Amino acid sequence: MTAELEAQEFALTCPIPIAQYPNVLLAHGSGGKMTHNLLEKMIVPAFNNPLLEARHDGAVLQMGEAKVAFTTDSYVVRPLFFPGGDIGKLAVTGTVNDLAMCGARPLFLSVGLIIEEGLPMETLWRVIQSMRQTAAAAGVAIVTGDTKVVDKGKGDGIFINTAGVGTLLTDRQIAPSQIEPGDTIILSGDLGRHGICIMAVREGLAFESEIESDCAPLNNIVSRLIEAGVEIHCLRDLTRGGLASSLVEIAQAAQRQINIDESVIPVREDVRGACELLGLDPMYVANEGRFIAIVAQKDARKALSLLRDHPLGADAAIIGEVGSEDSDLVTMRSAIGTSRIVDMLSGEQLPRIC
Amino acid sequence: MTAELEAQEFALTCPIPIAQYPNVLLAHGSGGKMTHNLLEKMIVPAFNNPLLEARHDGAVLQMGEAKVAFTTDSYVVRPLFFPGGDIGKLAVTGTVNDLAMCGARPLFLSVGLIIEEGLPMETLWRVIQSMRQTAAAAGVAIVTGDTKVVDKGKGDGIFINTAGVGTLLTDRQIAPSQIEPGDTIILSGDLGRHGICIMAVREGLAFESEIESDCAPLNNIVSRLIEAGVEIHCLRDLTRGGLASSLVEIAQAAQRQINIDESVIPVREDVRGACELLGLDPMYVANEGRFIAIVAQKDARKALSLLRDHPLGADAAIIGEVGSEDSDLVTMRSAIGTSRIVDMLSGEQLPRIC
Repeated sequence: MTAELEAQEFALTCPIPIAQYPNVLLAHGSGGKMTHNLLEKMIVPAFNNPLLEARHDGAVLQMGEAKVAFTTDSYVVRPLFFPGGDIGKLAVTGTVNDLAMCGARPLFLSVGLIIEEGLPMETLWRVIQSMRQTAAAAGVAIVTGDTKVVDKGKGDGIFINTAGVGTLLTDRQIAPSQIEPGDTIILSGDLGRHGICIMAVREGLAFESEIESDCAPLNNIVSRLIEAGVEIHCLRDLTRGGLASSLVEIAQAAQRQINIDESVIPVREDVRGACELLGLDPMYVANEGRFIAIVAQKDARKALSLLRDHPLGADAAIIGEVGSEDSDLVTMRSAIGTSRIVDMLSGEQLPRIC
Repeated sequence: MTAELEAQEFALTCPIPIAQYPNVLLAHGSGGKMTHNLLEKMIVPAFNNPLLEARHDGAVLQMGEAKVAFTTDSYVVRPLFFPGGDIGKLAVTGTVNDLAMCGARPLFLSVGLIIEEGLPMETLWRVIQSMRQTAAAAGVAIVTGDTKVVDKGKGDGIFINTAGVGTLLTDRQIAPSQIEPGDTIILSGDLGRHGICIMAVREGLAFESEIESDCAPLNNIVSRLIEAGVEIHCLRDLTRGGLASSLVEIAQAAQRQINIDESVIPVREDVRGACELLGLDPMYVANEGRFIAIVAQKDARKALSLLRDHPLGADAAIIGEVGSEDSDLVTMRSAIGTSRIVDMLSGEQLPRIC
């Protein structure tokens, strides 16, 4: 087959229209609509299996007698060090949090390093130390790994992949498919700090007080809810694409309407100011230590109080409910009482935020 | 603390001498002596735990009632497509093989993609299709994943991380620590095809017949040995650093001497010719479908015959034995009867071979 014919055949079968998108764009990795399309149209169908189709932060696997949660993320954040964290802390935290969102106790992590030739040895050492400290704080062990080095100019300092496994803390399935009309949506804290912190460093912006990333392992605050017997239907951490994209994904996966109230969503004043300055909407800004819990209405007050008793949940708030409409939309009531439909992040807002 | 003081403190504690190695070099990722040093001096002690210290291709974890093998590798091979395979096939095969080397049945994989902005969509589609086909052929499911996009010039087309989990096929521990004096070392087939195939494409070399990578999933051939009850003490696939580096790693981890016989190690004539042309020693060239089994002497013939009955083991050969000397050296008898000590690959031989 000639190269041209071969290209034509692929053009016929590739599920992303090549005429429109001949090349992968930064926005395909932003966590918004284009990422969603790439996953839904190309990757999930290619690897066709029901676990991927659950569209959750991780997969729950039956392995022998045990139920095991399994997840992975790669971290390509720029800069490598920022107020409140660094790529190593993020790489451990992110995967711990994805396991926690499956209702699992995170136990073991793998680490894959892709290092660019020329990275200062001291930088590598600082990143490794940070991973070690974060793993110890979260109570997980790093048990297997791999190190690759690529030529100068073919990477960007260091990229880190972590995968993680954990055992389930509850027999109850925690997933978008489990949400029900009337369920309460609780947000664990204020939005936007991680994204704004990264943007401020990148753009050289100085605010009155330094904005630190909210990057933190969520496994302990989540296990507190589970151990107290709260009827949790879904959990989701609010990373790339922010609260808005997460809610839209859940609504679509569950085929349920979600209604939230803008006025009760906590955003710090300095973060709100920075968002205005940068032209960003905090609803779409990435967080690394914030999540939503969608719980049975009867347990909402109990869950809120448990969250508020934990340092990572001090600003937790009930922000909405699952609707009974026949719809998969997310609607938001504004402070002045109007209502609008919330969409996923479109295009690239904040590339390489995690 | 000033930046200078901070740098000094790190220089004091960083276990790799920064004066000698201020930056990470390509050779730190070659799978040879410098990789070994980086892992042994910095990474393994930092993540201090007995599972990493087993220095195996993966970790074996107790999870609830189940024993689970867990492993990861990143793939940065250049070019992305080569005779006999591509980065997608390699990424599935490599992790399947690492699980197989733990004596596990590979079941589930995660996939982390780091894509460089501008990668042709068609290339991504070909890689995804290849992963799909390889996973189906190996009988594993891809159940969770992550996609990141980095700016043009900050990556190299596509890097892939896979992690994998599987259940153990046997209660017997399969690891370097289990080898015993008198054990037989069996090599599953001819050496060097993957590395030479990659180098030939990269250097634009044409041989009489095209040399194809040996890239293949080894889980079926390994499970054949286990299911037949062969007393296997250690398994190791012969990737970066080749047969020589693998044997040295095992000898050092087990604190046992290993003695092999050069004249019985199968290397194809075309591969041997290419190695001479390129100044490479086939003992150090990477393979992606070859492994050694270190088995109890009493089962050596049985194991050899089982391997030879499988298409991937047609050229299997007994190449040596575990010595009873008080030593951790690898020695090799040459065709003319002399004996020499085999060392790890030093420096970079073949960067980005996998």
